[in-house]
Amino acid sequence: MNPAFPLAARGPRIDAMQYGNWSEKIFRQMRAGGVDAVHVTIAYHETFRETVANIEAWNLLFQRFGDLIFHGKWASDVALARQTGRTAIFFGFQNPSPIEDDIGLVEIVHTLGARFMQLTYNNQSLLATGCYEKEDPGLTRMGKQVVREMNRVGLVVDMSHSSDRSTLEAIEHSERPIAITHANPSFWHPALRNKSDEVLKALGQSGGMFGFSMYPHHLKDKSACTLQSFCDMVARTADLIGIDHLGLGSDLCQDQPDSVVDWMRVGRWTREIDYGEGSKAQPGFPDPPQWFRDNRDFANVESGLRAAGFGIAEVAAVMGGNWLRFFQTSFEPAKACEQATDHPTSLAL
Amino acid sequence: MNPAFPLAARGPRIDAMQYGNWSEKIFRQMRAGGVDAVHVTIAYHETFRETVANIEAWNLLFQRFGDLIFHGKWASDVALARQTGRTAIFFGFQNPSPIEDDIGLVEIVHTLGARFMQLTYNNQSLLATGCYEKEDPGLTRMGKQVVREMNRVGLVVDMSHSSDRSTLEAIEHSERPIAITHANPSFWHPALRNKSDEVLKALGQSGGMFGFSMYPHHLKDKSACTLQSFCDMVARTADLIGIDHLGLGSDLCQDQPDSVVDWMRVGRWTREIDYGEGSKAQPGFPDPPQWFRDNRDFANVESGLRAAGFGIAEVAAVMGGNWLRFFQTSFEPAKACEQATDHPTSLAL
Repeated sequence: MNPAFPLAARGPRIDAMQYGNWSEKIFRQMRAGGVDAVHVTIAYHETFRETVANIEAWNLLFQRFGDLIFHGKWASDVALARQTGRTAIFFGFQNPSPIEDDIGLVEIVHTLGARFMQLTYNNQSLLATGCYEKEDPGLTRMGKQVVREMNRVGLVVDMSHSSDRSTLEAIEHSERPIAITHANPSFWHPALRNKSDEVLKALGQSGGMFGFSMYPHHLKDKSACTLQSFCDMVARTADLIGIDHLGLGSDLCQDQPDSVVDWMRVGRWTREIDYGEGSKAQPGFPDPPQWFRDNRDFANVESGLRAAGFGIAEVAAVMGGNWLRFFQTSFEPAKACEQATDHPTSLAL
Repeated sequence: MNPAFPLAARGPRIDAMQYGNWSEKIFRQMRAGGVDAVHVTIAYHETFRETVANIEAWNLLFQRFGDLIFHGKWASDVALARQTGRTAIFFGFQNPSPIEDDIGLVEIVHTLGARFMQLTYNNQSLLATGCYEKEDPGLTRMGKQVVREMNRVGLVVDMSHSSDRSTLEAIEHSERPIAITHANPSFWHPALRNKSDEVLKALGQSGGMFGFSMYPHHLKDKSACTLQSFCDMVARTADLIGIDHLGLGSDLCQDQPDSVVDWMRVGRWTREIDYGEGSKAQPGFPDPPQWFRDNRDFANVESGLRAAGFGIAEVAAVMGGNWLRFFQTSFEPAKACEQATDHPTSLAL
């Protein structure tokens, strides 16, 4: 818990994207930073079986560090985290590779606890188009089927690494609001991974969520980006699509060796080197910005947003309140959402 | 051997596509029809592991029926088949699913004996676009890498189920001639699966091969198609792209239950019914044309081509001579093709 913001005085802190080299140190930093819930990546290019192995590894961490973290499955687990002083870990995939070519695996991975799935990483997938392809034909035949199935079971469509047309079609085709868990607006920093005004507006109008990234390749001035520049950008985005659709998705890749960024970029799809967002001169992980080095720095962002002119309630919404509301309507099966139930989500926060 | 055409008097008979419900009966019919080599499908939607299981099943057949068939790996195996009175079985995939998302599996599947791989079945794949998608963005980033790797190891690019732009880009991008193992020209029967004049011309000009299909959905008048209509179409195609690029790829799906055509069409990509080339009124396998019911009917095609005005040498080229020449330059690694070797392909036919 951040001493500057006692629990009773603030809403939840939720980070919609991290991929650390997980350790007790990081989990203790989550607690020190008062982070109630984190959406973690458990698959970049993994097959179903490899993803299951990653879940097995997480189960060991949950067992070993049960006083710090637990497997978050429902929105109500954010309340449980706050009540028990732990961090709820929500699973997601940056690629649909865990469902392979099998629509039946959508329900299976949801049962295993997955709550977010990107329809593409940087390349074309069986479902849609990634942001590094030259052409973007939109959702494929299988993509439309899989989005419907994700809607049915409660697996959130995440288009963080997708290209524009595919993202717009996912927003249109999906019966439930979608997410872009980690990216920034291209009006601020025109990286291929960042999002156009058109995408941002369509996302907001459809009730979707946008998570701001602190990954240097997504930041203006990269590692040298200032907190003020970042928070001013949040304010401009709020002006564009409304503050209710904004949250954080830091893309914090803490303590990872550079071999991990190679795996992210190259996977198994090429025998050549692909630098992705990097370059030959800067092939590895970039240095984080000084104001966001690890989970203990969320208070810096909170202060920066206040300094940028946001009110207390607005800051709380961006720091986690908006994500919590999104979790409440996104993770359960569509049928359950239509019915009055005594499901755990009815627990008071 | 067909008694009407003694071995000494004719060239090889090669069928570049069959997917039968394999049995001793079918293998005996291959021998009765004088068929020296058949490219058989061993994967529609199978993963790598499932494809390996299919190879295991073939290995059992090779062991059990070694007097009728054997695993063909090189062009020289067509000569071996003729010398030993057997049929050489060459493996291929109708989908890149056996290499999953892993370019390293291209060399592995070639080592295991695969010689043809379609870059797509009917839908978008990780590599290119299938003929039933609405949009066709061409080869993907991974697709370009995989085509180069297929060129290197000697795995033939097959675009039978792909859409036009993807096919044209594969022809352009591939350093070795490609194949369309089983389809017909759309000028004759405008099915989505049949090929435009533009594709046919580009294929011929690049040294590629086109295999004519006898699958009723690819035929004018479908199951009622006449042999004369079929052979006249072959003649028109020869006028368009030259006879050197033409062969047979019957797409004979003998003795298969309708559950198999469901698997071909639906795989694991949808929870709905997809009728593919069929329809609600005709969901199953269509009846074969009367003049091509099984492997014993190749003599009918031979006679039909003669009746359509082709000379003996031309008929021999279409019945297998052209495919044999293509095999000779396609199945070995690119490096081996550049060097003078005492490789089995130097055996006299």
